[in-house]
Amino acid sequence: MDRIFNFSAGPSMLPLPVLEKAQRDLINYHGSGMSVMEMSHRSPVYEEIIARAEATLRDIMDIPKEWAVLFLQGGASTQFAMVPLNLMPQGGSADYAQTGMFAAKAAQEAAKFGTINIISSSKADNYTHIPAIGPRDVTPGASYVHITTNNTIFGTTYPTLPETGGVPLVADMSSNILGQVYDVRKFGLIYAGAQKNMGPAGLTVVIIRRDLLGHAQPICPTMLDYKTHADSQSMYNTPPCWSIYVAGLVFEWIKEMGGVAAIEKQNREKAALLYDVLDQSNLFTAAARRDCRSIMNVTFTLPSQQLTDAFLKEAKAAGLVNLKGHRAVGGIRASIYNAMPVEGVQALAALMQRFEARHA
Amino acid sequence: MDRIFNFSAGPSMLPLPVLEKAQRDLINYHGSGMSVMEMSHRSPVYEEIIARAEATLRDIMDIPKEWAVLFLQGGASTQFAMVPLNLMPQGGSADYAQTGMFAAKAAQEAAKFGTINIISSSKADNYTHIPAIGPRDVTPGASYVHITTNNTIFGTTYPTLPETGGVPLVADMSSNILGQVYDVRKFGLIYAGAQKNMGPAGLTVVIIRRDLLGHAQPICPTMLDYKTHADSQSMYNTPPCWSIYVAGLVFEWIKEMGGVAAIEKQNREKAALLYDVLDQSNLFTAAARRDCRSIMNVTFTLPSQQLTDAFLKEAKAAGLVNLKGHRAVGGIRASIYNAMPVEGVQALAALMQRFEARHA
Repeated sequence: MDRIFNFSAGPSMLPLPVLEKAQRDLINYHGSGMSVMEMSHRSPVYEEIIARAEATLRDIMDIPKEWAVLFLQGGASTQFAMVPLNLMPQGGSADYAQTGMFAAKAAQEAAKFGTINIISSSKADNYTHIPAIGPRDVTPGASYVHITTNNTIFGTTYPTLPETGGVPLVADMSSNILGQVYDVRKFGLIYAGAQKNMGPAGLTVVIIRRDLLGHAQPICPTMLDYKTHADSQSMYNTPPCWSIYVAGLVFEWIKEMGGVAAIEKQNREKAALLYDVLDQSNLFTAAARRDCRSIMNVTFTLPSQQLTDAFLKEAKAAGLVNLKGHRAVGGIRASIYNAMPVEGVQALAALMQRFEARHA
Repeated sequence: MDRIFNFSAGPSMLPLPVLEKAQRDLINYHGSGMSVMEMSHRSPVYEEIIARAEATLRDIMDIPKEWAVLFLQGGASTQFAMVPLNLMPQGGSADYAQTGMFAAKAAQEAAKFGTINIISSSKADNYTHIPAIGPRDVTPGASYVHITTNNTIFGTTYPTLPETGGVPLVADMSSNILGQVYDVRKFGLIYAGAQKNMGPAGLTVVIIRRDLLGHAQPICPTMLDYKTHADSQSMYNTPPCWSIYVAGLVFEWIKEMGGVAAIEKQNREKAALLYDVLDQSNLFTAAARRDCRSIMNVTFTLPSQQLTDAFLKEAKAAGLVNLKGHRAVGGIRASIYNAMPVEGVQALAALMQRFEARHA
């Protein structure tokens, strides 16, 4: 079987040119006589790889020097603990927006380490939308406001970022980092698991305003203290070398594609192909409210489980896989991250139209 | 340049057949139409990969079902916090053997979470040997005894395991797991970063007796609680999929080579090639005491920095790289893990003899 269109929510598709480079250089990287997987992380050849990855990410995201870039491990789930342990003092408090299952999990974990206020929630509506947040919603004394910029399971995203009135905005950007342009200056901290839009699983990228470093709670393990990693350029211990290398290739691919703005334009066009079909359909129903639709995860339902199963079966036969929605929403979820070619989305849109013509 | 002999202390050489398989299948794994790096960790094709990796590791290490095998992230440095947070109650105590820099770091981190007793130390001798530990050395009430089975920097290893009189033995086995046979039943917990003897960096393997699960301190982050991962077969969140895949290939390679016992025999022969040269030398001096020499990291010195530099230069010219010793020992360190071919060690031994003939 040839390569297929993989609509997985993550880990998910990587750009083919990136995979081809990784394959070509796997056994002997650039004449070094060894694989990137075999290199001492302290060797000049690897130091150049990690330094270039960081420089390219800073370039494509326009990250100011006042923000540190960290290459960590443990996924967003580890960040759910690291954020409060580092940004909230003992006995302190923080504000959370409850806009999806992972947003709720982040708040739940933070509650182990301080007082957590849920200042916005769409739980009662099964997370089909995202309530706006303004400065008057922020709790006095809160150390930060935590949001999830894109909710992978529900296919929602913030139409406009919250205004927090000077309180640091912290964002789990796992499912739309590099998929659309964000102004890093508006955030105290951004974190993202790599496995959706950046590279292989096992890498977590953190972008943190440097003045937020150095305030970890006394009970914070050394490896969960952002300062540990900022002070040693993500080399306090052995980093996830291969994942950083591949992510670096993805960053370079984005740059070659014209940068994040150009990618966002393409992503909006890809998403529009599906939303246009949904908006004209009498069979498929978009799951997310129109004003906060994600351009990364397009969620929709069919009238019955039987039709859903039939659609998934036809999609698979057509080489369009991993389209089954999360059990919390049901139906279909098409994750169309940066590396999903427009041809894959066109094929899906065409299938939806053919399917409807036969079943309407 | 062709592939070279890489004596790096970690990340380090991987078996060439493993790299060749990973390269061949990188873009399209076994007809799945996608790379292992692109697979949903919840997909049947990936579930088979992680299940087989665990089954093969259980096979080659003879791990009883009463011990859980966990595939985690964060390196041994994260284990330095996880072990006390999980195995020691609040206000409790634990015993540590101080036999190297990482052993000392483990004890230092644990001291954040309870009372730590250093029950054995060779620090005053710059860690050139490993003091024995018997049941009467164990502190009454200690939750566990922590050792480092092989000290990467100093090239030492325990000639015989401590007898702890029923107190759980916890071992950082990062630099000799799968390099020699250990009876898992003698340990409460074993942990190891993958990047020396198992696979790419970014994976940490934990083997834990199941009755030690479920006792984490209340301040333990969810992601640092072993039970979180044991309850979900290392799939609580997205695991480091690629590193687990490659480690699984390494486990299969070990099995094909005849298992850990056969590998240990070869490792002892490889190490003997170097120690024999050292024992007959008037130029090179072995750094570790004879009774606790490592078969993974062979450390030795030359009479001057000038000779050390000259030796390193000649070695590099001969395709033998990353031989520089850690600054704490100086001189030379030859890390000869499982994947280092005997030809590499023979070439190094021959170079040492030629070098001595010219400089003695």
